[in-house]
Amino acid sequence: MSNLVVTNCPRAERAIVDGLAACGVATVHEAQGRKGLMQSYMRPIYPGARVAGSAVTISMAPADNWMIHVAVEQCREGDIVVATPTSPSDQGYFGELLAQSLIARKVRAMIIEAGTRDTADLTKLGFPVWSKAVSAQGTVKETVGSVNVPIVCAGAAVAPGDVVIADDDGVCIVRREEAEVVLAAARAREEKEEATRARLQAGELGLDIYNMRQRLADKGLRYVDHADLAAGKTEG
Amino acid sequence: MSNLVVTNCPRAERAIVDGLAACGVATVHEAQGRKGLMQSYMRPIYPGARVAGSAVTISMAPADNWMIHVAVEQCREGDIVVATPTSPSDQGYFGELLAQSLIARKVRAMIIEAGTRDTADLTKLGFPVWSKAVSAQGTVKETVGSVNVPIVCAGAAVAPGDVVIADDDGVCIVRREEAEVVLAAARAREEKEEATRARLQAGELGLDIYNMRQRLADKGLRYVDHADLAAGKTEG
Amino acid sequence: MSNLVVTNCPRAERAIVDGLAACGVATVHEAQGRKGLMQSYMRPIYPGARVAGSAVTISMAPADNWMIHVAVEQCREGDIVVATPTSPSDQGYFGELLAQSLIARKVRAMIIEAGTRDTADLTKLGFPVWSKAVSAQGTVKETVGSVNVPIVCAGAAVAPGDVVIADDDGVCIVRREEAEVVLAAARAREEKEEATRARLQAGELGLDIYNMRQRLADKGLRYVDHADLAAGKTEG
Amino acid sequence: MSNLVVTNCPRAERAIVDGLAACGVATVHEAQGRKGLMQSYMRPIYPGARVAGSAVTISMAPADNWMIHVAVEQCREGDIVVATPTSPSDQGYFGELLAQSLIARKVRAMIIEAGTRDTADLTKLGFPVWSKAVSAQGTVKETVGSVNVPIVCAGAAVAPGDVVIADDDGVCIVRREEAEVVLAAARAREEKEEATRARLQAGELGLDIYNMRQRLADKGLRYVDHADLAAGKTEG
Amino acid sequence: MSNLVVTNCPRAERAIVDGLAACGVATVHEAQGRKGLMQSYMRPIYPGARVAGSAVTISMAPADNWMIHVAVEQCREGDIVVATPTSPSDQGYFGELLAQSLIARKVRAMIIEAGTRDTADLTKLGFPVWSKAVSAQGTVKETVGSVNVPIVCAGAAVAPGDVVIADDDGVCIVRREEAEVVLAAARAREEKEEATRARLQAGELGLDIYNMRQRLADKGLRYVDHADLAAGKTEG
Amino acid sequence: MSNLVVTNCPRAERAIVDGLAACGVATVHEAQGRKGLMQSYMRPIYPGARVAGSAVTISMAPADNWMIHVAVEQCREGDIVVATPTSPSDQGYFGELLAQSLIARKVRAMIIEAGTRDTADLTKLGFPVWSKAVSAQGTVKETVGSVNVPIVCAGAAVAPGDVVIADDDGVCIVRREEAEVVLAAARAREEKEEATRARLQAGELGLDIYNMRQRLADKGLRYVDHADLAAGKTEG
Repeated sequence: MSNLVVTNCPRAERAIVDGLAACGVATVHEAQGRKGLMQSYMRPIYPGARVAGSAVTISMAPADNWMIHVAVEQCREGDIVVATPTSPSDQGYFGELLAQSLIARKVRAMIIEAGTRDTADLTKLGFPVWSKAVSAQGTVKETVGSVNVPIVCAGAAVAPGDVVIADDDGVCIVRREEAEVVLAAARAREEKEEATRARLQAGELGLDIYNMRQRLADKGLRYVDHADLAAGKTEG
Repeated sequence: MSNLVVTNCPRAERAIVDGLAACGVATVHEAQGRKGLMQSYMRPIYPGARVAGSAVTISMAPADNWMIHVAVEQCREGDIVVATPTSPSDQGYFGELLAQSLIARKVRAMIIEAGTRDTADLTKLGFPVWSKAVSAQGTVKETVGSVNVPIVCAGAAVAPGDVVIADDDGVCIVRREEAEVVLAAARAREEKEEATRARLQAGELGLDIYNMRQRLADKGLRYVDHADLAAGKTEG
Repeated sequence: MSNLVVTNCPRAERAIVDGLAACGVATVHEAQGRKGLMQSYMRPIYPGARVAGSAVTISMAPADNWMIHVAVEQCREGDIVVATPTSPSDQGYFGELLAQSLIARKVRAMIIEAGTRDTADLTKLGFPVWSKAVSAQGTVKETVGSVNVPIVCAGAAVAPGDVVIADDDGVCIVRREEAEVVLAAARAREEKEEATRARLQAGELGLDIYNMRQRLADKGLRYVDHADLAAGKTEG
Repeated sequence: MSNLVVTNCPRAERAIVDGLAACGVATVHEAQGRKGLMQSYMRPIYPGARVAGSAVTISMAPADNWMIHVAVEQCREGDIVVATPTSPSDQGYFGELLAQSLIARKVRAMIIEAGTRDTADLTKLGFPVWSKAVSAQGTVKETVGSVNVPIVCAGAAVAPGDVVIADDDGVCIVRREEAEVVLAAARAREEKEEATRARLQAGELGLDIYNMRQRLADKGLRYVDHADLAAGKTEG
Repeated sequence: MSNLVVTNCPRAERAIVDGLAACGVATVHEAQGRKGLMQSYMRPIYPGARVAGSAVTISMAPADNWMIHVAVEQCREGDIVVATPTSPSDQGYFGELLAQSLIARKVRAMIIEAGTRDTADLTKLGFPVWSKAVSAQGTVKETVGSVNVPIVCAGAAVAPGDVVIADDDGVCIVRREEAEVVLAAARAREEKEEATRARLQAGELGLDIYNMRQRLADKGLRYVDHADLAAGKTEG
Repeated sequence: MSNLVVTNCPRAERAIVDGLAACGVATVHEAQGRKGLMQSYMRPIYPGARVAGSAVTISMAPADNWMIHVAVEQCREGDIVVATPTSPSDQGYFGELLAQSLIARKVRAMIIEAGTRDTADLTKLGFPVWSKAVSAQGTVKETVGSVNVPIVCAGAAVAPGDVVIADDDGVCIVRREEAEVVLAAARAREEKEEATRARLQAGELGLDIYNMRQRLADKGLRYVDHADLAAGKTEG
């Protein structure tokens, strides 16, 4: 599957995608069994953004951003472009002009396991990018790659149409086929956390809320008073 | 000293702790002879926070945050939790729910040589965290560790009750027994710097203020005019 | 050329320097044929600054900031100090007091392939610094180095008087002798991009604007409909 | 697909696997269109090994090597175990005792995106391991994961039964379904390279063998004599 | 405790030290409850060495190796020098001449959280060094530090006289006071492993030897045949 | 100076080059005032090689090794090729076939601030390579660069014809114009070290040979007996 552009890939329902955005990366990642998270070196260019969208994937040659131009045409409203070079690189494959093109197509964000540039302009435009580096170093347009084929981006497998969720905590991928189930699990998790939050804010301890004391003792945890320890009355 | 929770550890006086916070990390670190600084990869999740507190230490198994729950109970107003896994890890051991629990106990900050998550929420709450990474990846609760034993966190030795100072420049540890002396030295340093600052702002040179010119000449520093150098009149 | 301070180095014209600042790092770097960019680990201590100035260069011993004090005297209005240790280091060679001294001489920024400290104060002062690390760890003043000799900083060769451009995208060096030509090329590039920007905002595709379709086909790019691919009607 | 052990996965034919081993990583990677290569941080614990085998995959909790024990039972002669934690880690998940168990089942190698230990013993045993780190730090056995499910290891997607080729140049994955075609392409490449090698050894230039001169000139490459350049007779 | 050389520090008994060397890093680290291990970036300059000795500790200024010269005088037969700069650095603090001096005093090895040089000569001499980097970059002799004070080296706390064990798996520290108990535990562990090794070599599975099957099932591990999974007869 | 091949660059005398090889990197680097050393991430693909030669420099596009083919033609007996991409990259730009071509022209080594491959073959051929990474990932031949122009490689400035010295300690560059003077200084250094070596082997201390005791005392170094310190008779 090289040198290939796959058109008309199915996407998840918009309502499900937006629901996942509202839950955020940490909750969604837990809700789907702790899979699909990109490596922690994928960072937002500015804090505070939280988005979800349908993946348009790009496998591109290192130091070559030609396929991003090709991918733009395949984007629809609500998509997020996910791009990775076939070899690690921190060059600036993506900048403000390409962002203008994506904004014109109502794309929501760019995820790139490489460098981005024009970050001040992108911040002003409010177009969020998660990348491995910021670099002004440009790229060439000499080698073709593929659009909308399965890729591995920052350690996560991404298929075209998968749901991408990104916020200050990182980037998470949810399989399109699993998106509805994961959303339900994420919302259930949020409700449960809401109840726990109230108890914690009131000063209750997790030790009690989660009923941990007996299990800790069973595993051998001991409590010793500092004064006794210092006096040699107990053994450390 | 494994699988141990030490209770009732002594803390430094609140006034001393707060005085050290006011001085900041760079000044305190200099004032105590340049020791106790954590590695520069310990970064705040948002800029502008400056805090000090008494260390509640955690030695925890990698990928396991159980001991953080245990440590909460040992925290008092004015404490700062300092946690390190026994093997390097960038997972998200700490998030908003645990922060709620620490806030309820009036803990001032979290220092963790690992990952943190829910950073957008933590920023909104104004609860500062210094960590090695931001990651949504959760942890398990399977292996017990220790609370309030001596640890090494990001290259710095930390004992329970030591004073932790943290700001945008990083994190510094002051031994509890030395805190008063260090505070005095830090304040003396501030006063001296205040005088120097005024002279530098007025345009005086450090070369003159610090009386460096003779020593530089003794060490062999030479001055050559660019035009003479270009003309070959002097040797580079 | 060791232990040498070169005085009265020529600078580029102020108007040219300021013109390059207005263009920014990414545009200038492209305009001069993609050379002179520092490594992407050189990051600003706060976002949003964009400056240009004439380089005052420092080659200093590792863990020793003595030469920064020496260099201050060589600075003029509109300069930018560019400092590198002769061995990699992340210590805090530069802080608020030295910044006061540079501000008094109307220096515009500090570029240091090492650590900086007092970043909260520097941010309040609005004095921009690009560095490899933030660290409170101080340095000594024991070994002399050189000021205004050619150096390599973060992978870029820098001669005294070269133009330094720095913004959120990084740091770029333009040879003094080439500054005027590069400025013209950068402005031409900006004009061209302005026209392209309008077309992209209007929804035109880069594929068409840059006339890429035939060349992509010649290089073997194929388009396949997702449904056909899934049905096995076409080969991936 | 979590907490799952898939049994009786199909493997590629032994002759094909062995043929790929003989070709080596660099040739196979080129022959299949430059895909499937693991990141360059995956290094052999000793130089000189070259192996291929059928992948038995492991997705394991970070800091927990329980699933390696589970996977041993699924291994057959000629297999290679490929293991990755669900979060980055450099602990020593694998050592000499587990190697003894794999050797007893005629497994050919271990590929682990984490740490290995007992490397001196493993070297004496001649059991090759490619890993991200060497570390004596042990792991726990508390959390279940999966065996023989699709994983991402060091940036490469690996399905159970895929062919793993590993040598001093790194680790490459060939899809089981494509192994025969890739072997043919790799052998064709070897033959072609053999002919080229003889010409290069005889002193012919790649510029002539690959007929590059006209294309280089078309792309703008110019030749200038050093003496003319120094004399200013030509422009650099 | 700065600018201090502590003389006549007690060491552990030679027989205990040598016993720990025979057990090796991985076994000793496990035997003492997985503490005291240095970070995995501490690597030997050549493979195959395994040593133990009594720590002579050095806290030195970054880029300054003066204290190594001071420490030599404090070394006795059977010691190992453990040195760390007060700020990270990869310069070459240690080379062949200093090794000659240590060899003359029958020191067994050098552990340095920085760079070493003359590695070819050191290899010929058979003097083992574990370091963070190899670098020809020399250091100065300008700033005093301390010898035989407690330090943190590569994440491990080291007190003078502690036992240092180092081999291809890394470097581990055993408290002098605990050395005898740890040796007994390490030897017990070796005996137990010897029995397990024989069973594993005979083809028995760890699953059975360690009696893991029921606990795995209790934690939810399921087995599915590949053919059934592919046929949709079972759920992944 | 882009897209340029400079021919007939002058080289240093062979006897001087070979003399520098005999001295080795650490000695030469010291002898020329600690400049010209490449970063410590430049490592040999096998231990034990020590070479020197005249630099043929390559500035190449990232992920593109076309210019290496161009450079081969410019190589003469005794040269060393020094190549750097214009953006960081760890791909395998160089392998066995290109080495055959260089061997045919009696080139002595390859220095590349990127990746190399076929390392097992290169080791068998005895053709030494210093590189930043080992990677099987190939490159394209699409973009022209330059040969024999000044470059920055791994932090060191390199001009065509400069002397390159490389061994297990790293890679050092000596300006062609300074080579003779540096060789004399290196040899003087060797003689001096030879005398020192004999004294150190005989058990004399560097403290005495270098006459350090008074200066250490002047800088404040104190000696305290461990027993007195423990007994509180002296202050730490």
